[in-house]
Amino acid sequence: MRDDVLGRANVRDTPELKAYYAELARYDAGALWTVANDIEPWEPRSLSVPTLWRYRDLRELVMRSVDLVTPEQAGRRVVMLTNPNRKDVSACVGWLYSGLQVMRPGEEATAHRHSASALRFIMEGSGAYTVVDGHKMPLGARDFVLTPNGTWHQHGVEADGGWCIWQDGLDIPLVNALEANFYEVHPQLYQPVTKPIDDSVKTYGGPGVLPVNPVWTKPYSPLFKYQWDATYEALQRYASVSEGSPYDGTLLQFVNPVTGKDVMPTIGAAMQRLRPGERTLAHRHTGSVMYQVAKGRGYSIIAGRRFDWEERDIFCVPSWALHEHANASDSDDACLFSFNDFPVMHSLGLYREEAWTENGGHQITT
Amino acid sequence: MRDDVLGRANVRDTPELKAYYAELARYDAGALWTVANDIEPWEPRSLSVPTLWRYRDLRELVMRSVDLVTPEQAGRRVVMLTNPNRKDVSACVGWLYSGLQVMRPGEEATAHRHSASALRFIMEGSGAYTVVDGHKMPLGARDFVLTPNGTWHQHGVEADGGWCIWQDGLDIPLVNALEANFYEVHPQLYQPVTKPIDDSVKTYGGPGVLPVNPVWTKPYSPLFKYQWDATYEALQRYASVSEGSPYDGTLLQFVNPVTGKDVMPTIGAAMQRLRPGERTLAHRHTGSVMYQVAKGRGYSIIAGRRFDWEERDIFCVPSWALHEHANASDSDDACLFSFNDFPVMHSLGLYREEAWTENGGHQITT
Amino acid sequence: MRDDVLGRANVRDTPELKAYYAELARYDAGALWTVANDIEPWEPRSLSVPTLWRYRDLRELVMRSVDLVTPEQAGRRVVMLTNPNRKDVSACVGWLYSGLQVMRPGEEATAHRHSASALRFIMEGSGAYTVVDGHKMPLGARDFVLTPNGTWHQHGVEADGGWCIWQDGLDIPLVNALEANFYEVHPQLYQPVTKPIDDSVKTYGGPGVLPVNPVWTKPYSPLFKYQWDATYEALQRYASVSEGSPYDGTLLQFVNPVTGKDVMPTIGAAMQRLRPGERTLAHRHTGSVMYQVAKGRGYSIIAGRRFDWEERDIFCVPSWALHEHANASDSDDACLFSFNDFPVMHSLGLYREEAWTENGGHQITT
Amino acid sequence: MRDDVLGRANVRDTPELKAYYAELARYDAGALWTVANDIEPWEPRSLSVPTLWRYRDLRELVMRSVDLVTPEQAGRRVVMLTNPNRKDVSACVGWLYSGLQVMRPGEEATAHRHSASALRFIMEGSGAYTVVDGHKMPLGARDFVLTPNGTWHQHGVEADGGWCIWQDGLDIPLVNALEANFYEVHPQLYQPVTKPIDDSVKTYGGPGVLPVNPVWTKPYSPLFKYQWDATYEALQRYASVSEGSPYDGTLLQFVNPVTGKDVMPTIGAAMQRLRPGERTLAHRHTGSVMYQVAKGRGYSIIAGRRFDWEERDIFCVPSWALHEHANASDSDDACLFSFNDFPVMHSLGLYREEAWTENGGHQITT
Repeated sequence: MRDDVLGRANVRDTPELKAYYAELARYDAGALWTVANDIEPWEPRSLSVPTLWRYRDLRELVMRSVDLVTPEQAGRRVVMLTNPNRKDVSACVGWLYSGLQVMRPGEEATAHRHSASALRFIMEGSGAYTVVDGHKMPLGARDFVLTPNGTWHQHGVEADGGWCIWQDGLDIPLVNALEANFYEVHPQLYQPVTKPIDDSVKTYGGPGVLPVNPVWTKPYSPLFKYQWDATYEALQRYASVSEGSPYDGTLLQFVNPVTGKDVMPTIGAAMQRLRPGERTLAHRHTGSVMYQVAKGRGYSIIAGRRFDWEERDIFCVPSWALHEHANASDSDDACLFSFNDFPVMHSLGLYREEAWTENGGHQITT
Repeated sequence: MRDDVLGRANVRDTPELKAYYAELARYDAGALWTVANDIEPWEPRSLSVPTLWRYRDLRELVMRSVDLVTPEQAGRRVVMLTNPNRKDVSACVGWLYSGLQVMRPGEEATAHRHSASALRFIMEGSGAYTVVDGHKMPLGARDFVLTPNGTWHQHGVEADGGWCIWQDGLDIPLVNALEANFYEVHPQLYQPVTKPIDDSVKTYGGPGVLPVNPVWTKPYSPLFKYQWDATYEALQRYASVSEGSPYDGTLLQFVNPVTGKDVMPTIGAAMQRLRPGERTLAHRHTGSVMYQVAKGRGYSIIAGRRFDWEERDIFCVPSWALHEHANASDSDDACLFSFNDFPVMHSLGLYREEAWTENGGHQITT
Repeated sequence: MRDDVLGRANVRDTPELKAYYAELARYDAGALWTVANDIEPWEPRSLSVPTLWRYRDLRELVMRSVDLVTPEQAGRRVVMLTNPNRKDVSACVGWLYSGLQVMRPGEEATAHRHSASALRFIMEGSGAYTVVDGHKMPLGARDFVLTPNGTWHQHGVEADGGWCIWQDGLDIPLVNALEANFYEVHPQLYQPVTKPIDDSVKTYGGPGVLPVNPVWTKPYSPLFKYQWDATYEALQRYASVSEGSPYDGTLLQFVNPVTGKDVMPTIGAAMQRLRPGERTLAHRHTGSVMYQVAKGRGYSIIAGRRFDWEERDIFCVPSWALHEHANASDSDDACLFSFNDFPVMHSLGLYREEAWTENGGHQITT
Repeated sequence: MRDDVLGRANVRDTPELKAYYAELARYDAGALWTVANDIEPWEPRSLSVPTLWRYRDLRELVMRSVDLVTPEQAGRRVVMLTNPNRKDVSACVGWLYSGLQVMRPGEEATAHRHSASALRFIMEGSGAYTVVDGHKMPLGARDFVLTPNGTWHQHGVEADGGWCIWQDGLDIPLVNALEANFYEVHPQLYQPVTKPIDDSVKTYGGPGVLPVNPVWTKPYSPLFKYQWDATYEALQRYASVSEGSPYDGTLLQFVNPVTGKDVMPTIGAAMQRLRPGERTLAHRHTGSVMYQVAKGRGYSIIAGRRFDWEERDIFCVPSWALHEHANASDSDDACLFSFNDFPVMHSLGLYREEAWTENGGHQITT
């Protein structure tokens, strides 16, 4: 790892140095200059590669898991999405985890809690619900629900519902890497529902209003469910008065209404809308993002590669990878749901963003 | 001001002391013990008295101002509501100001800005609008709009609208008392509308979502308008899952969505709903409140006096006055809009609250 | 209050209007345009006048109070400093209160607490001490000590000390005006000392270090005492590396070390140093300030009037009054201790500051 | 990874499942239940092992690097401390990096900056200095200095100084893992000193006082240097009024005086003092810690292993490892400097702490 730049390490191995390195190793030590250029790169190098998971490939595989394992055996019947270079940490991109989970009517997974933060984005089916710390929430397609770090949570499908599939998003790889993960199964296996149905949305989901008491001080949003209808309406209204971002189209982030900040301390989420025919410019930023196509079809160019997507497809953008999006329809809008680790970047002072200025702001695909 | 309690001042005047006091006065000084018990009362003593302003009394008077003065002469045609003991500072209660303003179709007041914070609550009419820093917002009955400290603002009624009356609420007396009021007339008298109509609501009025850019750092809400329909629906939804407060029924405060805090640094606002037949318990708190009856009829008992109210009536609760509310209808709900100086109390560490525990939690009316 | 400027009220009284005003008054109402220009001034008008209290005038008067009243009768033997225009609210400037208190060796005032925030600045004597919520602190000349809102506090002088005089500073007028003052005498009249002597300074007074537990969440500083020696040394060190402010010389504000913010929610305090011969430029700001000369001699020009001062003299600068300071010595530095209501201005979004640019930045004295 | 607990995965491999897993892998997918118990452990499992680096082992090796490489070749002559299980990421514990750097009189390393945050703790020598964004600071033994993320920094030793050795601490492994590291060599290779010597300490190092302007808004402390003398005095004073922590003795954390929070967003630091003969109880917490013995001798029991230490020895405590400390002297105190990643744990909501209650609170050594 020599680098012929002043201020960088550039040491040639010699027999004397090799002997020295061996002696250092005996004392759990090493010479910084042998790795300095490697561990202090000029800019971030993500281990993850841009990847697209097609729903038409995965749906049948997910469904098949129902016949292969029971929820009791599997804990949860989930097909994980693993980035080619991150299988060792079960990550889909960076330190994020994602999977597709299926449940049949009448099934309910046991309750547990963990230090990892989690979210679900409903892809298909009816009758799905989640219970978070006693708050039960029915879920429809394209609804987004939180099960924050430390909360008891369990998922199920009502007996009169249909087969349900949703995407899970978690920071399990991050919390493991940070050596801070705790896990508990609920002492009664299933937690009781102690609040009126949907009380979270009915209490915290009004626009520009909040209850005064009790004061909410937990580090995550008390609004656990973000419904598609309201979100899509908000996007349309916002798009009617704003040009939006040149890189993201019309984007709204999901927030904790009590603070106006990200929904959880480690995971942020957003829904963005591309106008018919809209094609954004390329930019890049630190932080990893997982996208799911909530509506429409189009393509994204990520690190120079083009990925065509349609509804329910999932793809990732690794940290510092250039990316731009395009709606392939001239008549319909397209919407992308996404979750990310931006809150980690912001909290730790590591967020950085850069527009791509060459070639009219667009990447040249390879 | 003698007080026969150990630790309190209890000094009898003597000729010697009188001479001493006179000498002190020559040096812009005085003896603390002559006023100590007065300026350190056991608990707050409000100068304001509980007062009810009946709309049926005021409406005609407000209308008549149209014939008496032009907007050009008057600046604004406003009938101030003055607390009997606070006429000297033009306050309706504590350090809050309120007035009823009328405008005819086609009229528009000139734009100005000031250090005082302001709000309006629309009482009747159609075609009203407000422009705040270039953002124009149409206003319907029972809508609530902010014109925060330091923003250019102007009010008007469209040519095809009807006569409009609204309630103004400001902290003018407070800002004057704090000797911090600045006032400017807009250099072009009328400010231009520079943004799409209602862009504030369409940008910041979605539930649980916020735009990412630009970052809003001003000390007041970027959501300037809170519409009655959405607020009333939020109240009903909240009431369906919560018992509400024993003192306030179902109450939602209006918030800055970017922070989850009060809409402006000096004035808070809320809408509360009393169920059919609901009667709350008495409590008291520091901070002054102005109420307007947005819907229904009922009564409030304030410092032992009963005040019956109906739609569009206005009343005040002075600091530390006991108060309780009742909905007089067994079939319809009642709603109270209110604004207050609680943000001042909270920021300065002066908020205190106390439930009334005697007589089953209800005051005995005098 | 007519004003011949477009956008301002300019209504001439007529018999018809007078009748209208009388009718409004019957309903606790009035016409805004009769007072609008008065209550919306172009810029702040302070009721307070710049005032200097000479210690050579006051010292003997303060001492004499010892013979005239006992602490038991008076509660506290304090000569208040009253601004000529603010005697009605016992204020020295704006909504601040100040007084000079004297105690003899062996005397101890009873303990009390109140919503008002308080501080003391020791002027002369030895053996003085203050007890705040069980923390006892010995005090020397020019030490600054807090007795924050809601804390039990009592003052005394050790039996082997000397006569002590100090300046009290409080926000009593403000808290009364805000109708939020509560007062209690300690149930045992004198509170016990429950902590090691000076534990506050020894726990929170280290530079750049803080204890981890317990977590301090109260709205005021846990560091109650700021010692002159350390403060003066800090000023000298700061002056050795910084030009300081053109308006204030070398100024350090006293802070809550747990937040880096003002020591109390309503009162800030600072110590500033003028180099030998230093003369500052004029500026003005919202907020009121009381100064005490901690060291040296010089003069200040306040709203065009020159006030010459020497050690232990006290003077005030009203809100929005232009002011500039000068050290009259070419060999010795001068230090001004001050307390203010800037935290109120900042919390409520009302702070504004302006440099004086005419006449080379200096006022012309009248 | 089967686990015979309800709510955990417990699926036995079958030929059918193996085929299914193979098919999943073709689509960059996998079955969660094959790894679930592994990636959701009951409690944190650190990859790092408790390790002690003896200064008597390392000192000569560090010195020898002077003859082996020049600063120009090596960038910096640093002997890294590598945890046996973390050599792949050049970490000493968790995601922290540490190394011992040596410099001769007259040497100066080139200036660079990076997203990683850094600190130095001086071990021996005279004439050392660091320049951070134009602020030059002389450094003595046991002084602690910051070179925060994004600041230009360079180190050197004055020509009339002695050989200097210090410990570096950085979060390079973390910032690399988070794929957010940027690195730049200073365009002029050496940055100019633009501020008076030690202006940071002289501006921000006063106890309980802060300058008003300019307002410091960066996410790290403007106080870059924390001097041993002042820190040790603060510890002694604190110890004189407090029992201290049962797990840590008398511990003060280094803080950003402008916020009262950690010195940098990703790295915290503390100095703790063990009384003569003091032996603490065992506890554990998430987050990794590197210790250096600043004074005295004693031992620590970490995860059941005893490590004896003396001045300048360095040791680590991995996340969630039980640990307790003992001062081996009955007459002299012992001091431990430490740095950690607690700010990461706190920002991300992952901090957890637990006292050890068995065996009288002490571990049984193995």
